[in-house]
Amino acid sequence: MFAAMELGGTKTVVAIGESDGTLIEEMRFPTTTPEETFLKAIKWFSGKGMPEAMGIAAFGPVQINPKADNWGDILQTPKAHWSGFSITKPLLAAFPDMKITLETDVNAACLAEARIGAAAGLENVAYITIGTGIGAGVLCDGRLLHGALHPEFGHVLLPRKSGDDFKGTCPFHGDCLEGMASGPAIAQRWGTPGGDLSPDHPAWDTEAWYLAHGIQALLAIAPPERVVIGGGVSQAQGLHEKTEALLRELAAGYFPALENSPYVVPPKFDQEAGIRGALMLTGF
Amino acid sequence: MFAAMELGGTKTVVAIGESDGTLIEEMRFPTTTPEETFLKAIKWFSGKGMPEAMGIAAFGPVQINPKADNWGDILQTPKAHWSGFSITKPLLAAFPDMKITLETDVNAACLAEARIGAAAGLENVAYITIGTGIGAGVLCDGRLLHGALHPEFGHVLLPRKSGDDFKGTCPFHGDCLEGMASGPAIAQRWGTPGGDLSPDHPAWDTEAWYLAHGIQALLAIAPPERVVIGGGVSQAQGLHEKTEALLRELAAGYFPALENSPYVVPPKFDQEAGIRGALMLTGF
Repeated sequence: MFAAMELGGTKTVVAIGESDGTLIEEMRFPTTTPEETFLKAIKWFSGKGMPEAMGIAAFGPVQINPKADNWGDILQTPKAHWSGFSITKPLLAAFPDMKITLETDVNAACLAEARIGAAAGLENVAYITIGTGIGAGVLCDGRLLHGALHPEFGHVLLPRKSGDDFKGTCPFHGDCLEGMASGPAIAQRWGTPGGDLSPDHPAWDTEAWYLAHGIQALLAIAPPERVVIGGGVSQAQGLHEKTEALLRELAAGYFPALENSPYVVPPKFDQEAGIRGALMLTGF
Repeated sequence: MFAAMELGGTKTVVAIGESDGTLIEEMRFPTTTPEETFLKAIKWFSGKGMPEAMGIAAFGPVQINPKADNWGDILQTPKAHWSGFSITKPLLAAFPDMKITLETDVNAACLAEARIGAAAGLENVAYITIGTGIGAGVLCDGRLLHGALHPEFGHVLLPRKSGDDFKGTCPFHGDCLEGMASGPAIAQRWGTPGGDLSPDHPAWDTEAWYLAHGIQALLAIAPPERVVIGGGVSQAQGLHEKTEALLRELAAGYFPALENSPYVVPPKFDQEAGIRGALMLTGF
């Protein structure tokens, strides 16, 4: 039996299933304090028997390098109570023989989409999520990218759309991708949440501009064969097509990866990509 | 005995040595037609005995994926006579039992700098070269990044420096990094080659702007622990320091990788990084 946990900023999912991503049983609950959240998770897992291995998909910043002294720790975060909390210690205290594989939530989602989802069978895949923030998981040459800590794709700095004078919502960088194109950025720029804007609202041209430039940077650095965009904001009708069309214009025929079509696609799993990917980590 | 070949756009280097990058003997000559260049290389290697393995560092675009049918082929390139030429076939015809490992020139240089050069011992390193074009090799999690084909870092699109109205020299994208910051871009923008501009010329603030933004994109996608910048243009006095200072300003304390100092450094080997990296490929 394999266990999986998706620790999200607002919700937590615990599950048991197979390492190919098949879910047998899951439970979802709000992420509250670290102590309460892990107590609830451990209680649930205990009722299912002794898991031999667990994959965890966690919000970041989180130390996912197993060689680091602080492996498993949530790093400095504005999220109250979580800075410095160890994700792995309470689980290992409860299940001492269990093997834990820890990844970022976006890397886990990327893995699920690349194995059995919208990019099934590809070895080079990026998964972008757009909601309160923007993040990406990247599978490159069949491996999930980490580098020093892990990618913070949302904070890439991109060319401004002509005539756009919105200063951006990122407290660090102002007009980085996240500052210009996250859910809060859309709401602040247009005075209306994205969910209330019609598909032909100019907001979506602006959104596609920043997304296409972000993907262009991915293409230049860790070229994906396909890009999956999920998260609440991505549900706007036509956004994937609009982004892909602009991306092709920007790329000007230069990147062979764009011969794949469609190139920018919605996720197959969306709400379940993270937890399925976490299950897959047990066999990765 | 291990063999190595660096096939550059203007010069070719052939060498024998050890797989730790130690050079025993090398010869350099201009890259001319494919036939003439490979005839000369093969003749030289034949005089050294039968190499058991060879690492090749080649200019791109080149198919480096060993699973691809066209592995070893130079792809569509403006360089006369080279489009579609197979690098590997003539070498395997001459040395049928030789194992060939093929990489991009920048990935090979990155490997050398990461193993025994300016970023020795690090597992996450980017090597950027600025000359006629701009390219990068990236070691991430101890592996050289490929993705779909290989990175084309020079073509990343970046925010314009305020007040900069140069339209850029890239025939595909105009104002991508290469179009704004390569040797020809500097010469065209200022009417003088970079080598003739004094270290306090404003050209170098502009150069540092685009480089720092390019590195910021690397940090957000495949975070390096250190960035090595080589190539002719990088020899401008103070350019590494200027780029690092601006990068730190842009990053606004966000990326933990920047705790490493110095972060942006010149190469240790410069002219020899490619051929030493090619030797290392035989044991990679």
